[in-house]
Amino acid sequence: MAIKININADLGEGFGPYDIGNDAALLDIVKTANVACGMHGGDPGIMRDIAQLAKEKGVSIGAHPGFNDLWGFGRRQIDMHPHDLENLVAYQIGALQAMAAYAGIPVTHVKAHGALNNMACVRSDYASAIGRAVKAVDPSLLHLVMPGTELERATRELNLPVAREAFIDRTYEDDGTLTPRKLAGSVIRDADAAAKRACQMVSEKKIIARSGKVLDIDFDSLCVHGDEETAVRVARSCKEALEKAGVEIVALPEMMQSGT
Amino acid sequence: MAIKININADLGEGFGPYDIGNDAALLDIVKTANVACGMHGGDPGIMRDIAQLAKEKGVSIGAHPGFNDLWGFGRRQIDMHPHDLENLVAYQIGALQAMAAYAGIPVTHVKAHGALNNMACVRSDYASAIGRAVKAVDPSLLHLVMPGTELERATRELNLPVAREAFIDRTYEDDGTLTPRKLAGSVIRDADAAAKRACQMVSEKKIIARSGKVLDIDFDSLCVHGDEETAVRVARSCKEALEKAGVEIVALPEMMQSGT
Amino acid sequence: MAIKININADLGEGFGPYDIGNDAALLDIVKTANVACGMHGGDPGIMRDIAQLAKEKGVSIGAHPGFNDLWGFGRRQIDMHPHDLENLVAYQIGALQAMAAYAGIPVTHVKAHGALNNMACVRSDYASAIGRAVKAVDPSLLHLVMPGTELERATRELNLPVAREAFIDRTYEDDGTLTPRKLAGSVIRDADAAAKRACQMVSEKKIIARSGKVLDIDFDSLCVHGDEETAVRVARSCKEALEKAGVEIVALPEMMQSGT
Amino acid sequence: MAIKININADLGEGFGPYDIGNDAALLDIVKTANVACGMHGGDPGIMRDIAQLAKEKGVSIGAHPGFNDLWGFGRRQIDMHPHDLENLVAYQIGALQAMAAYAGIPVTHVKAHGALNNMACVRSDYASAIGRAVKAVDPSLLHLVMPGTELERATRELNLPVAREAFIDRTYEDDGTLTPRKLAGSVIRDADAAAKRACQMVSEKKIIARSGKVLDIDFDSLCVHGDEETAVRVARSCKEALEKAGVEIVALPEMMQSGT
Repeated sequence: MAIKININADLGEGFGPYDIGNDAALLDIVKTANVACGMHGGDPGIMRDIAQLAKEKGVSIGAHPGFNDLWGFGRRQIDMHPHDLENLVAYQIGALQAMAAYAGIPVTHVKAHGALNNMACVRSDYASAIGRAVKAVDPSLLHLVMPGTELERATRELNLPVAREAFIDRTYEDDGTLTPRKLAGSVIRDADAAAKRACQMVSEKKIIARSGKVLDIDFDSLCVHGDEETAVRVARSCKEALEKAGVEIVALPEMMQSGT
Repeated sequence: MAIKININADLGEGFGPYDIGNDAALLDIVKTANVACGMHGGDPGIMRDIAQLAKEKGVSIGAHPGFNDLWGFGRRQIDMHPHDLENLVAYQIGALQAMAAYAGIPVTHVKAHGALNNMACVRSDYASAIGRAVKAVDPSLLHLVMPGTELERATRELNLPVAREAFIDRTYEDDGTLTPRKLAGSVIRDADAAAKRACQMVSEKKIIARSGKVLDIDFDSLCVHGDEETAVRVARSCKEALEKAGVEIVALPEMMQSGT
Repeated sequence: MAIKININADLGEGFGPYDIGNDAALLDIVKTANVACGMHGGDPGIMRDIAQLAKEKGVSIGAHPGFNDLWGFGRRQIDMHPHDLENLVAYQIGALQAMAAYAGIPVTHVKAHGALNNMACVRSDYASAIGRAVKAVDPSLLHLVMPGTELERATRELNLPVAREAFIDRTYEDDGTLTPRKLAGSVIRDADAAAKRACQMVSEKKIIARSGKVLDIDFDSLCVHGDEETAVRVARSCKEALEKAGVEIVALPEMMQSGT
Repeated sequence: MAIKININADLGEGFGPYDIGNDAALLDIVKTANVACGMHGGDPGIMRDIAQLAKEKGVSIGAHPGFNDLWGFGRRQIDMHPHDLENLVAYQIGALQAMAAYAGIPVTHVKAHGALNNMACVRSDYASAIGRAVKAVDPSLLHLVMPGTELERATRELNLPVAREAFIDRTYEDDGTLTPRKLAGSVIRDADAAAKRACQMVSEKKIIARSGKVLDIDFDSLCVHGDEETAVRVARSCKEALEKAGVEIVALPEMMQSGT
């Protein structure tokens, strides 16, 4: 039986007249899209269009809720009451469910965006708020999180299904955290090196640290970025290498049902 | 068997630190709430709170989508592409469904707000856009409209269930339209007169024009306003007079099932 | 003495993470920039950056106020109270004055954006509202308008200095209005044809209609667009042809002082 | 010669259809208004109206810039790049200058709002960013700050004129900071006690701590709140007691010229 893995990316982050990212290119690489929901990016029309394209390409979709901060693209940390945050997240999930109804596909997961995700990895009140929102709207939604974080812990505490992601183009420290971006080499831009690393990670089902150490952390999905052309190239290279190695790239729900 | 009627009002139109209207007073008068969805007013927390209160008081809730114009409170006419409008409406319905999930009650109807409602009463492209949004998100949703308008026509054309409303505190012209606000006497502020009129309207199931003419237009719901204390007084007076006359005030879904 | 003409373009219409248009290319072509002020596009940082670049390149700047509608990019007609509109315009002018203070250059004109401009060309209440805003903030500001419109009329009535623009890449009807975009040939995409036409217009100081008729309408500035690469090419071609023909391209204040 | 003191309050924090605070009551108590500029509250029309009323009542006005967070009313801490923050503050000052032009009165000071003020009291990068914005727009603007904070330090470093405020209805700790709100008694609600304390503070020109200790911190202005009716009562009581004691309540520019 073939090894399976999911690949996910953030999509639909334009707004009105504004385009950003490489939605078209990424929809041919990934099997799961985290769809911006109109707060840090995205608008109702873009959400509907991404859902339609995702359906046509067999890509599963999830809500990608962010802070209500379009100017900052959801990358500014905002210290809000966890109760307000919970409501903000639930609102966005519901909005995407409506726009996905046009394509007739379900929203199957949630993954927090940008500064919200970063804060929730270390702040338990934020992590629990996101988890409670997911649970209130649909407790069968997969919560896609970085393993070993407060987000994972809170999600398990709420008995929600957890999916864990690893980053294809970022190096890790020995403690399982990402190497800070400011350190040289923390972002992997060599498509061949990334592809080789991705295959090793998937075959061993472990995350490989910068030191070479194989971390005892499992994952269900590989996250790729689409901000730059080089990122898209790295992502495509990884996908092709994995397929060549016999790995089947599947949507997140299928990945989770396959029983890791 | 008792005559039944629904009473509806617009609720939850505050935003963040801002209160507006008389939500608490109205929730004791009406049986159906049109809940603002965060565009012309309302925010995720307010939506959740109204849904919770509605559940406790046996009030049915519906989405009250408006233009994305908080500054103008959705009262400015905006000429947007019907496709964008449709998406904007669908987005708001989905957002409310999520916030209502907290209370465990369903969203059972949709009623457009302010300038959007006014425009859709006469513009077929706007009327159809709203109807398509309702249909896409949930074709079982009741669409609460003013009878004899493009909104009613478009909704019937899409085979969506229609609920029709009449205004308790506004006079009508002989052609079934509302008397323009600028005309003296167009807004009924006398609580006793309004109550008497409401009872007559409900017993005859017809709308009564300013001239005294009984218009051949049926309705399922009476709309009350809560902007001013006098409006709340008028609404309460009508409710009490109706109940005294043996009329049962019911939520909108029950009203529609009762088979007008 | 050399013939002088101004060339203007809309600039700085990005927002936060979003780029749009070709600001860099246009700043090497035009001598006057209409700077978005944060409502239909633009943000405080972009406004400041454009002002700085404009100073370095000898480009004069003006406020380009639009409706507060980022999603619709100011291209949706909004029916607001003229008093509110006036305040909205004044607010934007003041905001740009502050951001221009960083570069130490003055805001020297105002030109309304998109749907606001279109509406004010035909609605006298909107035209007057914009004029009053300009007058209140700084009555020495040039108001850049399309000649023959309500905007021109209202501006003259308020005794504000008027600057008039003609479009370099759009054809005109015999009545002085623009040929509707939907008509084939209404947008001039042939760089050579546009250049030839621009030179003829400037030498004759008249607008040339689609029929070839020379309209008896004077202008002080040529408006170029930057939405597409072809538009930039057309603009550059016109500028080069004009300079080759001995026409001096000057900033708007110098153009108006030269005494048309 | 009479002792002089300024009293300031935050005003104009409504938005569109929404009222908040007690603008009318406060404009009869204070001599200086901090005017919301459309980001955390306020809109162009409200700004203009407050400026007009301020002129009529001899009240000086200043910009009260906040985070661009209407939902959170500027009370949520946002971690943005200081460069973006600086631009955001400058933008708001310019916008108010334009709206004040209608009344023909100048903007004479700046005071940061809510979470922005709180953060800038302890974060030097935020404090400097606000100071740089003030300096860029108009270096003669008074910067109204809480003494002993990073805000005061940064403002002095930039050679901007500093005005210092003390709080009339809040108790202080011995180190010059405010007693946290959660501690019982930290908010003074007894109008007589507040009045007595205000008189003592002004006559001694020192801030009095909760312990009774007289802190060696000078101030130019007393800040009053208007959120609740009790706050307005406390403010009015202080004003009346000060006047009875022969203290002259003056606008901030006059206070600063009087040479503390």
